[in-house]
Amino acid sequence: MRLKKVKDAQLIIEKSKYFIKNPFDKRGNYKKMFDNNNPVHLEIGTGKGDFIIENAIKYPNINFIGMEKYDSVLVRAIQKAEQYDFANLLFINEDAAKITEIFNKEIDVLYLNFSDPWPKKRHSKRRLTSNYFLTKYDSIFYSNQQIVFKTDNRDLFEFSIICLVDYGYKIKFISLDLHSHKEINDNIMTEYEQKFVKKGFPIYKLEVKK
Amino acid sequence: MRLKKVKDAQLIIEKSKYFIKNPFDKRGNYKKMFDNNNPVHLEIGTGKGDFIIENAIKYPNINFIGMEKYDSVLVRAIQKAEQYDFANLLFINEDAAKITEIFNKEIDVLYLNFSDPWPKKRHSKRRLTSNYFLTKYDSIFYSNQQIVFKTDNRDLFEFSIICLVDYGYKIKFISLDLHSHKEINDNIMTEYEQKFVKKGFPIYKLEVKK
Repeated sequence: MRLKKVKDAQLIIEKSKYFIKNPFDKRGNYKKMFDNNNPVHLEIGTGKGDFIIENAIKYPNINFIGMEKYDSVLVRAIQKAEQYDFANLLFINEDAAKITEIFNKEIDVLYLNFSDPWPKKRHSKRRLTSNYFLTKYDSIFYSNQQIVFKTDNRDLFEFSIICLVDYGYKIKFISLDLHSHKEINDNIMTEYEQKFVKKGFPIYKLEVKK
Repeated sequence: MRLKKVKDAQLIIEKSKYFIKNPFDKRGNYKKMFDNNNPVHLEIGTGKGDFIIENAIKYPNINFIGMEKYDSVLVRAIQKAEQYDFANLLFINEDAAKITEIFNKEIDVLYLNFSDPWPKKRHSKRRLTSNYFLTKYDSIFYSNQQIVFKTDNRDLFEFSIICLVDYGYKIKFISLDLHSHKEINDNIMTEYEQKFVKKGFPIYKLEVKK
């Protein structure tokens, strides 16, 4: 993602009630933070927040956490969220690589939306569906492990199918052109997705469970 | 497939040295029929034979069997084969549904190329990657179970990935646009594939193993 530096991003973020200041200190206690027993869904790479905010509106009985490493992007998500009064939405400003230091057996569903394809083979470990990350995810899930993955990148999608299946995940749903499917009226789009769909690119989606 | 009735198809087929007359009688003895210990690769729905004949030429140390239910199509494959002197190629004129009556623990690789998508849900059992057929294949494989699947039909491909993974197969290779891959110089095309590639349609390929 090309980044526009946003002035005072960190300041704006830190003032928001949606922002978790010391996420490492909350490890194991995220369910408590929402003050209910609802499931917790996490999006890694939440970007400008369109996906997770629309989810938070549509599903008040699910708690949502958006994780984004760039404050200049996350600030946009937080500014959008500030227009509502959510009790089921929080944001974290950290890198996915630290996920096991932040969460411990408390996530019910993990969303990976349009994450960096890291096309070079020597960077394949950095892809969010690599074996390296799948091992990390094992310890963040509460009981069932469910991952919902969307991308416009064919190579990343092929790689991800192989990795997830190899790791023991079963496929619940797959689409090689999501927006041509009749039964996708429950699909919530990310900012990237809106852009790619306008251009006529196919969107790949995979839902897996273990 | 729209079929042109070929006059005397059955007569021409039965005269050929490549034709197995009573395949049910050979059950368990196909390796012997080739008079060597080479692996046996089977193609279900061999059509006019382009794929299996090119394979037989390219891999003389593999035995190939092409199975096709329509004699008016199979006759074209046999006429092509008659232009060569193969010791590693045979054809069967039977329906895939009878596969367990024809083979018993003797197939090393199974090719399913551009098979009928049977788009209606109530016909899904007839798709060659349905659970119904996967159960049958278990008893035809020699030791490792390897299936190589190509199609131009997106719905059938999505269905097949889910079925094969659910059945315990691991994915060795996947392509959502085979002819855009750099490393496909070993790809051998079927008649259908040649037609679809000319039209610019993507070809889906999956190699799985158990």
